[in-house]
Amino acid sequence: MDEATLMSQHVSCSISFNEWIKQRDEVYRRFLEDIEIGYADRDVIDFIKLVFTKKKIYTTSSCSGRITVIDASYPWLREESYVIYKKHEPITVDDIEQIIYSHIPKYRFWLVASGPILHFVVLDLQSASLLLKIVHGAGFKHSGIISLGGSGIVIEAVSGTWTSFLLKEGSELLVSDLARIVKVANEVLIEGKKRLEKLFKVIKETDI
Amino acid sequence: MDEATLMSQHVSCSISFNEWIKQRDEVYRRFLEDIEIGYADRDVIDFIKLVFTKKKIYTTSSCSGRITVIDASYPWLREESYVIYKKHEPITVDDIEQIIYSHIPKYRFWLVASGPILHFVVLDLQSASLLLKIVHGAGFKHSGIISLGGSGIVIEAVSGTWTSFLLKEGSELLVSDLARIVKVANEVLIEGKKRLEKLFKVIKETDI
Repeated sequence: MDEATLMSQHVSCSISFNEWIKQRDEVYRRFLEDIEIGYADRDVIDFIKLVFTKKKIYTTSSCSGRITVIDASYPWLREESYVIYKKHEPITVDDIEQIIYSHIPKYRFWLVASGPILHFVVLDLQSASLLLKIVHGAGFKHSGIISLGGSGIVIEAVSGTWTSFLLKEGSELLVSDLARIVKVANEVLIEGKKRLEKLFKVIKETDI
Repeated sequence: MDEATLMSQHVSCSISFNEWIKQRDEVYRRFLEDIEIGYADRDVIDFIKLVFTKKKIYTTSSCSGRITVIDASYPWLREESYVIYKKHEPITVDDIEQIIYSHIPKYRFWLVASGPILHFVVLDLQSASLLLKIVHGAGFKHSGIISLGGSGIVIEAVSGTWTSFLLKEGSELLVSDLARIVKVANEVLIEGKKRLEKLFKVIKETDI
């Protein structure tokens, strides 16, 4: 295979412009509905609105970062896992004390502080390549194209500002200074939000 | 832009087949050198050898998963961060006790258990799309194309089996049951290695 052949390679990710616009408008309609019913993560609303002013990208799923307490064997599990507490803003020691002193986990209680996660749908590969550079530059170091499927090119932007703390297993508390844990978890959350702000600024200035 | 135009879109990721093969052979030569001097992560050697028997993919960087103790404000940092301890196999309580009882961190001591991370260079987009499906299916859920640059298409495969434990800040120990922490960290490591084995089997059976 020579370079000319490679240059013209295509994959099944291709989607017509009209179809792409139709999907984008439908996602935007649902997003406005989510705001209406108070379901949207407030810290990310302006960011999403900005992205929808762009020509070749939109977002389907966006989280500004959050702190959760989950009951699971491991903090990454979604099945066999219960979210006991969730907040997109800094938390207090009281919030967490109420959970861990009065409940016994089925598996283990983890306090998880995670940064923003954004899913972008991108019209073409040139724009995907540009967006990858932008998100990596803004500190979303674990971002990549996760799908080249039929409905467009999907980029997951993840900041990597993520920390877990094992709080309790059975009736045994496993942290000795909850105030310090909460302080660090809040720092992690805030670092994630800073990266989101940085990304906001760069996307605002970029023709994409 | 209509679908036909989109189908033929190309990006600067294109590389000639000859150039790609040349780079692959050079990476393989360095990998054999690493084995020779005992530098390679033993648990991933067979995996890398398998990948280099394939036609359209090779790996540049591979870790089978590891447990580290790092001194850093946050566990994801690479700068202003010191790796105090690193092992690609299960650890013992003794290993960790020796570090945390006799040293005071500059920042904070974190015990980090992380799963395998693999970087693949892929010849073309069709193969990239196929490899993405394979790695996602094998439990490498946070994998994506991280670069469409001049030297090929790069896929980072990450399992998401990752856990941090805050051990110590200043002279204050922050965990109350080190044996349990070590047990969970070892479980996390082993879960990552299992996913690597699963990926090994699927890649072995796939024409890519």
